[in-house]
Amino acid sequence: MVARTVDLRSDTVTKPTETMRAAMATAEVDDDVLGADPTAFRLESEVAKITGKEAGLFVSSGTMGNLISVLVHCDIRGSEVILGDNSHIHIYENGGISTIGGVHPRPVKNNEDGTMDIDSIEVAIRDPRGELVFPTTKLICLENSHANSGGRCLSAEYTDRVGDLAKKNGLKLHIDGARIFNASVALGVPVQRLVQAADSVSVCLSKGLGAPVGSVIVGSKSFITKARRLRKTLGGGMRQVGFICAAAFVALKENVEKLDGDHKKAKELAEGLTQIKGLKVDVAAVETNIIYVDIVEGSKITAEKLYKNLEEHGVLVMPKGLSRMRIVLHHQISSSDVHYTLSCFQQAFTGMHQEIGSYSISTSRDVSYA
Amino acid sequence: MVARTVDLRSDTVTKPTETMRAAMATAEVDDDVLGADPTAFRLESEVAKITGKEAGLFVSSGTMGNLISVLVHCDIRGSEVILGDNSHIHIYENGGISTIGGVHPRPVKNNEDGTMDIDSIEVAIRDPRGELVFPTTKLICLENSHANSGGRCLSAEYTDRVGDLAKKNGLKLHIDGARIFNASVALGVPVQRLVQAADSVSVCLSKGLGAPVGSVIVGSKSFITKARRLRKTLGGGMRQVGFICAAAFVALKENVEKLDGDHKKAKELAEGLTQIKGLKVDVAAVETNIIYVDIVEGSKITAEKLYKNLEEHGVLVMPKGLSRMRIVLHHQISSSDVHYTLSCFQQAFTGMHQEIGSYSISTSRDVSYA
Amino acid sequence: MVARTVDLRSDTVTKPTETMRAAMATAEVDDDVLGADPTAFRLESEVAKITGKEAGLFVSSGTMGNLISVLVHCDIRGSEVILGDNSHIHIYENGGISTIGGVHPRPVKNNEDGTMDIDSIEVAIRDPRGELVFPTTKLICLENSHANSGGRCLSAEYTDRVGDLAKKNGLKLHIDGARIFNASVALGVPVQRLVQAADSVSVCLSKGLGAPVGSVIVGSKSFITKARRLRKTLGGGMRQVGFICAAAFVALKENVEKLDGDHKKAKELAEGLTQIKGLKVDVAAVETNIIYVDIVEGSKITAEKLYKNLEEHGVLVMPKGLSRMRIVLHHQISSSDVHYTLSCFQQAFTGMHQEIGSYSISTSRDVSYA
Amino acid sequence: MVARTVDLRSDTVTKPTETMRAAMATAEVDDDVLGADPTAFRLESEVAKITGKEAGLFVSSGTMGNLISVLVHCDIRGSEVILGDNSHIHIYENGGISTIGGVHPRPVKNNEDGTMDIDSIEVAIRDPRGELVFPTTKLICLENSHANSGGRCLSAEYTDRVGDLAKKNGLKLHIDGARIFNASVALGVPVQRLVQAADSVSVCLSKGLGAPVGSVIVGSKSFITKARRLRKTLGGGMRQVGFICAAAFVALKENVEKLDGDHKKAKELAEGLTQIKGLKVDVAAVETNIIYVDIVEGSKITAEKLYKNLEEHGVLVMPKGLSRMRIVLHHQISSSDVHYTLSCFQQAFTGMHQEIGSYSISTSRDVSYA
Repeated sequence: MVARTVDLRSDTVTKPTETMRAAMATAEVDDDVLGADPTAFRLESEVAKITGKEAGLFVSSGTMGNLISVLVHCDIRGSEVILGDNSHIHIYENGGISTIGGVHPRPVKNNEDGTMDIDSIEVAIRDPRGELVFPTTKLICLENSHANSGGRCLSAEYTDRVGDLAKKNGLKLHIDGARIFNASVALGVPVQRLVQAADSVSVCLSKGLGAPVGSVIVGSKSFITKARRLRKTLGGGMRQVGFICAAAFVALKENVEKLDGDHKKAKELAEGLTQIKGLKVDVAAVETNIIYVDIVEGSKITAEKLYKNLEEHGVLVMPKGLSRMRIVLHHQISSSDVHYTLSCFQQAFTGMHQEIGSYSISTSRDVSYA
Repeated sequence: MVARTVDLRSDTVTKPTETMRAAMATAEVDDDVLGADPTAFRLESEVAKITGKEAGLFVSSGTMGNLISVLVHCDIRGSEVILGDNSHIHIYENGGISTIGGVHPRPVKNNEDGTMDIDSIEVAIRDPRGELVFPTTKLICLENSHANSGGRCLSAEYTDRVGDLAKKNGLKLHIDGARIFNASVALGVPVQRLVQAADSVSVCLSKGLGAPVGSVIVGSKSFITKARRLRKTLGGGMRQVGFICAAAFVALKENVEKLDGDHKKAKELAEGLTQIKGLKVDVAAVETNIIYVDIVEGSKITAEKLYKNLEEHGVLVMPKGLSRMRIVLHHQISSSDVHYTLSCFQQAFTGMHQEIGSYSISTSRDVSYA
Repeated sequence: MVARTVDLRSDTVTKPTETMRAAMATAEVDDDVLGADPTAFRLESEVAKITGKEAGLFVSSGTMGNLISVLVHCDIRGSEVILGDNSHIHIYENGGISTIGGVHPRPVKNNEDGTMDIDSIEVAIRDPRGELVFPTTKLICLENSHANSGGRCLSAEYTDRVGDLAKKNGLKLHIDGARIFNASVALGVPVQRLVQAADSVSVCLSKGLGAPVGSVIVGSKSFITKARRLRKTLGGGMRQVGFICAAAFVALKENVEKLDGDHKKAKELAEGLTQIKGLKVDVAAVETNIIYVDIVEGSKITAEKLYKNLEEHGVLVMPKGLSRMRIVLHHQISSSDVHYTLSCFQQAFTGMHQEIGSYSISTSRDVSYA
Repeated sequence: MVARTVDLRSDTVTKPTETMRAAMATAEVDDDVLGADPTAFRLESEVAKITGKEAGLFVSSGTMGNLISVLVHCDIRGSEVILGDNSHIHIYENGGISTIGGVHPRPVKNNEDGTMDIDSIEVAIRDPRGELVFPTTKLICLENSHANSGGRCLSAEYTDRVGDLAKKNGLKLHIDGARIFNASVALGVPVQRLVQAADSVSVCLSKGLGAPVGSVIVGSKSFITKARRLRKTLGGGMRQVGFICAAAFVALKENVEKLDGDHKKAKELAEGLTQIKGLKVDVAAVETNIIYVDIVEGSKITAEKLYKNLEEHGVLVMPKGLSRMRIVLHHQISSSDVHYTLSCFQQAFTGMHQEIGSYSISTSRDVSYA
């Protein structure tokens, strides 16, 4: 029985670093509901700058960032939003845009790479002057990188095309950029370029970047003014919020450069897993820090047994359906953790630990949070 | 320039018959908001009996019937409904279940025959005790016959299977039965059997049955009690509503037997149209009174020109997208109208009227509403 | 045990006249959802003309008329409406503006005469550029005549002042004119003048005017365009609706002139009741067709017993709370009915029928619907 | 021109203490969305214990606490809540319960002491089996202490009576306890006793208690389970939220005992202000830490000028309407600040600083955050 834990369920499980704690301890704060917290303002401005937008607003989660963005763009009763049928907003946010916001979703099929066909989007748009029985399309949402497609990235060109379509039809474009920095690093394209066509972006700081809490939404000044009011309505206004903004600022400054390493480790892990008989991984689809692993039919071990076995060795993954699991890398997973994880999988299938390729699993000195 | 009009846009365009007018003129009425109108009660009871449900409620439209049904089943904030991505509720009802009712739709792909794969439905169901980020599935909606699939019919067996799935998961099943009588006649299966598995059905009387106004929703007594209250909230309570119920009762009594003729004429028209070079019709898919006609690429005539040409001859069809049109038969379209319509299409493509097969287009004496 | 029924619960209980039935039997109708019903159009135009507004829309009830009007004016999420704390919209419409429309009500105290103090309204207005914690006031609602104040009338001057206040603050003014014709007749001021300051009015045809079903809302063309779409969303679009519009048109043409008689009979009945020991009526407050009657404390008869006793004699009134009842006159209550009613009350309190003043109760020849 | 600032706008403006910063720096944290943060759990349990309820949930603001509580109790479409017409929820929370939650508010008049008459509440309750036109009352809300009444306290006995009424009618009782600790200290009654009759309470930690961020809502386990899901829907779930919970825990442990001092200083300030000609304060109404001050008509100085003058001397108050201001004491306002404030007011009215009673304004050594 090992004491070691390798938590691969999500990149939200990272622990704040010492630098973040230090930043919090000394943060200059004030009442942000009264618009006076300097640290919140500094973080919001920084994210606005990075994304090339006029202004930013700190919110407590990616879900709140998306909810507020969709509701601000769809502020009129009878609005419809076009979004991916496999997108985070449609699947994992409690249906809040409808159940809380009264916005009608019009899901369009997500391709395996996270895109929606441009033609399919175009057909789904409903003219506001159109038939009496149609809601009015107000917004298109993209997600970059696209979580349920295994963290695959949308190119700047694709996003531009959707943006052009939106503009042509008088619609807004929102990007759920929970992992936009992963996409930027993987594509080698600045964030600002990737979201150039967007009217708003929700950027998460507590996923791959490792901040304890929070996201920032960015857009035009008038968008942010409306967003600020709606944040208050939802109860998302926080008083001396600068503390958590200070930690998020550190995440932004220190952790973007670690993402490339996460992607490499994801690739390495994916390649290792694909060599295990009984598992299937589309290695080519691992563009960032997320891996989807399928247990092939007729495998010697059931999914349930596999998860139990892994957990006994301290390796945590996220089951997705009956025979699929999700694995997410982050900056607190070391190379050693990757090798250890591979050996645990191997052992679960073969009943014995063994060397995977040329990797040694003996050292754990680079585990940053052990 | 002919004076003749053949309105094939929808089966909602029928004109009330003399029997209906007479029934209205002598209807016994009272204040239905106070629950006292005997004619409304008689109609509601009759539809409840036909569908095998406990009780019924008259509503002013199919849209209101579906809206109330979905909202009653999804009365708790955070509810989700599984429905066809090409269903009337999802596409043609203003997104009202979300924009007015705050219900989150989870569309599942509609097959060409109007069904959704049972497996796809099952995967879409979200356990109420499940993940914190999921809305709670409360309802599955079917549509029979299925308008956007060209009026194709769902079998009793298919519906039963969906009903079983719903029951197993503690969900309700609603059937949008705007044209359930068409399905019943086409399949040769009683309405009651077709909706046996349903907790509620919305039955339209002003489509194929030709009533001037109205639908009836049916379900358990407790469902109808809640529906009555919600109808009042929407402003759908009507005082001496018995007048229109009287006409609807006539529709129910006199026009069900005419549906078979509508279906035969639809088939005849479809077969005629498929012989026209430049048009494409899936004749096998014409199971009831609806025909979808595609103008093939490279056709001599554009869709726009074709519609204009037809309209000049009094033939009205419903454009659906760029090169597709919908044609709907109803009891006020005669055989002669069908032949006339075919000749108008032929003429539009060839520049000259001509005999279609062995049909003569000279007589119009059987036009019932000329 | 008498066979006679005098239904004083509401002016919604009237039975359609022969003229109305005849108008329905011969009405020219078409598909109004497709915008083609000439009789609906004629009615809508007539009410628009009478109220001095650009356009009208037929709806199935006063509740739907108010709901649509409030929702169109408050189409943006976060809207607030100022309305009387004793108004029909606030008390008797299921809270639909909130529960269906998500509009926040800000009730202001209704005075005994149905007005709200102008100062109180002004204080309640919230500047859209104001504090982050305020919803945005978009609309003020008045009700004329004011049902819960006993049918008292708002003067044109009062309405103008509220209209000025609205305009000064960029707000809209809606008038719930369910009984605006009663107010017009009682004040001797044209309807058009009474609603001059309003952006929209909901006019009921099935209350004092005696139509079987329906109301018409009026306003600017752009208001009606939005209202039409929202009516469809609610399911309030009706196909061959001209039948009921035809009856409503008759109501408008024939029954306005009967309202003055209703008011006189209300006054007469109120004066008679006030002479009965044990009852209290504010006769001066009876300005139109509504009377509120209180059973004074220590009365010989309980409210319950009184209603039972009256009902046994065929006299129906509407209980309002523990010791108050509402009585509403309409064109199918004759002078004889009034005298009969008085004698029934008298008998209930004294145990014996008797002459009330100089009135004879023997004749019932002017009962139009017996 | 002084450098001194005495911020009396609200008790939300306090700066976190060194102890709070230290607690944050060393807090043990984990992913609270996955239910794993020990510090959040410790805080929630502590507040549950203090209030005598089964469970607690940390939320980012009092507004979110109230919003979630009202929405959980009113989870069915068509719900109505009875609340004070001058309550924080009705006036200062963006109308979120309607605009986001679709709940219909039924405001009842708040007396000067923050209570609503029990009879008025009873009359406002609508029976769920009642008239077709009524929404269904589900909840009564109280506020203790009551901000807009100047921080006055509701007794345990009054709260019990409202609780009894709620229970008798099958309703829930929620207490907005943003300042429940102030009420407890002022009345000398434990918090647990004050909220004994409540089904849920929202307790704010970032007002008088001085935490940087957050509130805790408490209630039954099943209430909290639903609340947790709704918090996620609103986007209020936070990952490593333990940091701010750690600070809030310190607030709870260290600052309750300071509230009595705040109340004494409030009394002292109120008494001083009432001696200034031109100001009016109801000293007897100052039960906790809030003072309402009216500028009497005919005063030598306008409200605007007064505020400007005060601000130039670093004294900040909160204007409420045209001639009224709100002053709130908190633990970072010293006795010296009180004296200084009084002298600034005096100077504004007389043109010269002077001794107020026997107070000296020279020392400021006890200002903790200067």
